[in-house]
Amino acid sequence: MQRAVVLLSGGLDSTTAAAVAKSEGNELFALTVDYNQRHRVELLAACRVAARLGVSRHLVIPVDLRLFGGSSLTGDLTVPKDTVAENIGLHIPNTYVPARNTIFLSLALALAETSNASKIYIGVSQVDYSGYPDCRPEFLSAFSTLANLATKMGVENSDSQHRISIEAPLMMLSKTETIRLGVSLGVDYSLTHTCYDPSATGLACGHCESCLLRLKAFAELGIPDPIQYGS
Amino acid sequence: MQRAVVLLSGGLDSTTAAAVAKSEGNELFALTVDYNQRHRVELLAACRVAARLGVSRHLVIPVDLRLFGGSSLTGDLTVPKDTVAENIGLHIPNTYVPARNTIFLSLALALAETSNASKIYIGVSQVDYSGYPDCRPEFLSAFSTLANLATKMGVENSDSQHRISIEAPLMMLSKTETIRLGVSLGVDYSLTHTCYDPSATGLACGHCESCLLRLKAFAELGIPDPIQYGS
Repeated sequence: MQRAVVLLSGGLDSTTAAAVAKSEGNELFALTVDYNQRHRVELLAACRVAARLGVSRHLVIPVDLRLFGGSSLTGDLTVPKDTVAENIGLHIPNTYVPARNTIFLSLALALAETSNASKIYIGVSQVDYSGYPDCRPEFLSAFSTLANLATKMGVENSDSQHRISIEAPLMMLSKTETIRLGVSLGVDYSLTHTCYDPSATGLACGHCESCLLRLKAFAELGIPDPIQYGS
Repeated sequence: MQRAVVLLSGGLDSTTAAAVAKSEGNELFALTVDYNQRHRVELLAACRVAARLGVSRHLVIPVDLRLFGGSSLTGDLTVPKDTVAENIGLHIPNTYVPARNTIFLSLALALAETSNASKIYIGVSQVDYSGYPDCRPEFLSAFSTLANLATKMGVENSDSQHRISIEAPLMMLSKTETIRLGVSLGVDYSLTHTCYDPSATGLACGHCESCLLRLKAFAELGIPDPIQYGS
């Protein structure tokens, strides 16, 4: 049984990517980063999902990206409401967190190396890519090159079977296709959290870009979204 | 005045690299990672050095790499004594910390982006490279490619002047040459900490690989090492 690290935020995408990793016969090592995000309630979702998936280990590592600032998800900027970025590649919204996926993948690389896992799963998609540079295939390809130069594991295993690979099974899928895939794999989306700006009790706002994309996708599939939304 | 992020551990190399960054006319933003290293006393050295250099900001970010394990610097393995790795590229010592420089550079990238700095200085050297894969030029080159694909800064500034560059001014220098360079720049090495396995009061052991390389270099230069050693 091959081992895989899955970056698990507790959101819809990473949960689906983790389900794909499991369906492909991997033993899962889940990594969640507590980056002092505004939507900290997603950490609880990550714990629920990890338990449901039966991962061998779930590591939650605190890395306070609020120290850097520069994002509405970690700072004082306001999360945009009732708007979805349309201009792919031209507009980077303020929900972009500087270097976030680079940091997350670096931490996943450390866990992969110490867990003897040769695959890292990440739930990014370029289809619904809302202007985030670190959700593109060329970014992941560059990280894969780096990972194999950076580590003992990469240097000592030059054969392709043991090289570290970055798996992004949702890269070419729209949110609707992602949910369809997850449903086919038995994912329980009631466990997940998506909202960037939840209420104090953790209810999704239904108006941030993240909520809007989720609601639209469930509506297109004609499936009720199983999570609760506040007013 | 250009801005630069300097990765500052408090050791001899990163202190020299920071002095080079300053001498090249940059405004400095120092980043120190508290990774729960065995030699935590180096964090105090980083604070002393940052103050002496007059950096604009010194950020110490906790990222507990002990959670991952796999290294004598963060786990239960024993730091080797009275031995220096000779077989470059063949032997990776247990003081290697999985993915450490990848994680450090990723965090520096976040600080660079939010500080509007286009340079990141890191004090690695391939000459005294003791088998660490993440101290080689090909690793830094891969990170530079990644950095410009990963960030808003990289994507929005395709002209060379504003691209993010990774500066490793010590890459081709031996430890002896590094100290000679530092002395010429006025570095006060009494502020630095090098030992991997210090005493409870922070005194250097004089026997770990890191101490041995430092002592040998000062001896070659005929300069007394200004720090105190235990026993």
